[in-house]
Amino acid sequence: MKPFFQVKTSQEIFELIQGFPLLPGERVLLSEGLNRVLAEDILSPEDLPHFPRATMDGYAVRARDTFGASEAVPALLTLSGEIAMGQEVKAPVEPDHCFRIATGGMVPPGADAVAMIEHTQQLDSRTIEIFKSVSPLDNFIQMGEDIKKGQPVLVAGQRLRPQDLGLLAGLGVIDIPVYRQPKVAIISTGDEIMPVEEQPPPGFIRDINATTLQALTAESGARPKFFGRAQDKFEDLKVLCQKGLDQTDMVLISGGSSLGVRDYTLEVIRSFPESEILAHGISISPGKPTILARVGNKILWGLPGHTVSAMVVFALFVNPSLKQLEGKKIGRSIPGVQARLTRNIASAQGREEYIRVALKKGEAGWEAVPVLGKSGLISTMVRADGLIRIDQNCEGLEKGEWVEVLLF
Amino acid sequence: MKPFFQVKTSQEIFELIQGFPLLPGERVLLSEGLNRVLAEDILSPEDLPHFPRATMDGYAVRARDTFGASEAVPALLTLSGEIAMGQEVKAPVEPDHCFRIATGGMVPPGADAVAMIEHTQQLDSRTIEIFKSVSPLDNFIQMGEDIKKGQPVLVAGQRLRPQDLGLLAGLGVIDIPVYRQPKVAIISTGDEIMPVEEQPPPGFIRDINATTLQALTAESGARPKFFGRAQDKFEDLKVLCQKGLDQTDMVLISGGSSLGVRDYTLEVIRSFPESEILAHGISISPGKPTILARVGNKILWGLPGHTVSAMVVFALFVNPSLKQLEGKKIGRSIPGVQARLTRNIASAQGREEYIRVALKKGEAGWEAVPVLGKSGLISTMVRADGLIRIDQNCEGLEKGEWVEVLLF
Repeated sequence: MKPFFQVKTSQEIFELIQGFPLLPGERVLLSEGLNRVLAEDILSPEDLPHFPRATMDGYAVRARDTFGASEAVPALLTLSGEIAMGQEVKAPVEPDHCFRIATGGMVPPGADAVAMIEHTQQLDSRTIEIFKSVSPLDNFIQMGEDIKKGQPVLVAGQRLRPQDLGLLAGLGVIDIPVYRQPKVAIISTGDEIMPVEEQPPPGFIRDINATTLQALTAESGARPKFFGRAQDKFEDLKVLCQKGLDQTDMVLISGGSSLGVRDYTLEVIRSFPESEILAHGISISPGKPTILARVGNKILWGLPGHTVSAMVVFALFVNPSLKQLEGKKIGRSIPGVQARLTRNIASAQGREEYIRVALKKGEAGWEAVPVLGKSGLISTMVRADGLIRIDQNCEGLEKGEWVEVLLF
Repeated sequence: MKPFFQVKTSQEIFELIQGFPLLPGERVLLSEGLNRVLAEDILSPEDLPHFPRATMDGYAVRARDTFGASEAVPALLTLSGEIAMGQEVKAPVEPDHCFRIATGGMVPPGADAVAMIEHTQQLDSRTIEIFKSVSPLDNFIQMGEDIKKGQPVLVAGQRLRPQDLGLLAGLGVIDIPVYRQPKVAIISTGDEIMPVEEQPPPGFIRDINATTLQALTAESGARPKFFGRAQDKFEDLKVLCQKGLDQTDMVLISGGSSLGVRDYTLEVIRSFPESEILAHGISISPGKPTILARVGNKILWGLPGHTVSAMVVFALFVNPSLKQLEGKKIGRSIPGVQARLTRNIASAQGREEYIRVALKKGEAGWEAVPVLGKSGLISTMVRADGLIRIDQNCEGLEKGEWVEVLLF
């Protein structure tokens, strides 16, 4: 018989998550690539730019023809013509000659610098005075200076930001290999849970978790779908779970994972062939009554019923597990905010604890103000900006200590 | 005649932005509310919870009946029954009586605490032993303890996070007043700019900025639409600008705002009745050749052609201007990351400068590694994680100094 209450540390959960299978890749258009995770390394198919470009308005010159030039003794160059935007000049620049060129124009062969317009004067239709010498490579970008052909530009596992898409656009890579976004089934349990549209009689409450978990899932870049509310009955939850496992990559069940009398979640999970309970309980507070299971290639989380606890578990574990499925290297996450704690916080040793905090701009940087309150109160999350962590070997944190705030 | 080159400081730009008009409000469903900006304060229409709820499995008791209870001398209570989830018990708990209750159940009148199941034992079908005294209010949430009826819960101008939506769900507020999202027209200029799908001949380059600016706009919560590429001709740009002004709230033109020979942007803007050039030039580097204008209620930005410069101006000014239109209080932005600089950076005094940096996890926290390179190289943005600012009164930053990194 499988153990009933198999508590894992957060470190053990992270290790389990890293064993989750990656989703298959797919290809999307550049215009749909924002925040997607790259599934293959991208090597540049060409030089960027693929011709030398002026970065200033002025004259394309051979730098050596300007050496020694000054206000008092300008260099005199013969104007060979003007380079239009998009124009390719094939004939090389002759000694002591120059071409007028605008920012972005193609620097002709032979020229190795651009003299800024501000440091020049046109004497007549054929003659340009240069008042300041330029060095080779001044004011232009060489062919391949941004990216060289064959150079790795982006690596598998990275989330695509606007500039990454910009670079791909520049290289003409318009069909991008990305991992499929995880599809996530959201299921609520509990006889007392009602749709948000209804007026609950005494004893009943509206389904806060369905809304919160769908939004958290969407924010993390995955695709949530609400599968409904299960009554506290084995068959009810089993039907919804089966649908979720059939149609999505991950199932989030909230409620029903405490030691309560109507705890069917574990029973339902175990009823699926190939099911494996990876954890029943995580040694953190809040968030302990969490179940993590695999059913074949699908992942199933049984989240605590209290919204605060469910949100903490989502931020700490569910979010990284979605990133794992989507191939995102977990290590490259955005760092938290450093802030100074505004009061002492005691913590029981032997238990990893997460404290809700609000951020406040203080005189010496950011301050983290603990938001106290039971984990059943969602208003505490609304007042908070993030979480700070107290290690299990730590008896608490002191006022004035620097802490790292994980924003949410 | 209007001044031609009207350079403003970044502080002056921020002040101008704060004068931009807010967009009108609209109502969206709760399920569409993520990341939208609330347009009205929300007062709670009811108490949350609207009945006292148990937060633990156990027995609903009158706390005083357990005072003095211990392992050695347990309190003996008579079991009046079990409260089902969703059940309302109207009869008050009699002295020395209790009800079995599960987490989330409705605590009956008269009970003022819940004794945890772990500290109890059932002696027979009618008798419960309590081994540990409970205090009034232990292990349950009072009516209105999370949110009281009439209490302000969310304020106009705040971005709706998952927990904010969760709270609204709990209160049954399913039709949410938000500001309309800004619609943004993206226009590229330049004879040498080609669609990303095409193979540019020498002298031509693909349109990097259109892709980058659309992604930046989408990421900031606004709705981008690409209006096309204008040749460097007055009429061409005028037609696209007119469409953009007619159909959107903000027009972003990139390229064409340097002092270059084909600079029609300013001319086009001035040709619209009601146009007002607010700034031509911002005293920052990179990003100086920027135009900011209003045409009636519409905002128009002429961004630098170099992608790096355009991105810096977007992060510093365009993004806050979109937030202003959408009613988001600018002050409540996410703080940057504190990191230690890995090398000296010199800066010309009298000019506010932004340096691209990559973040690296060092032994003593995050390190900011400057990414050097011309602002024409988009690869520098791809290698960078954010920007640090050097004040105009500062001659540079020293290795080891703490800096705030604005992430992008």
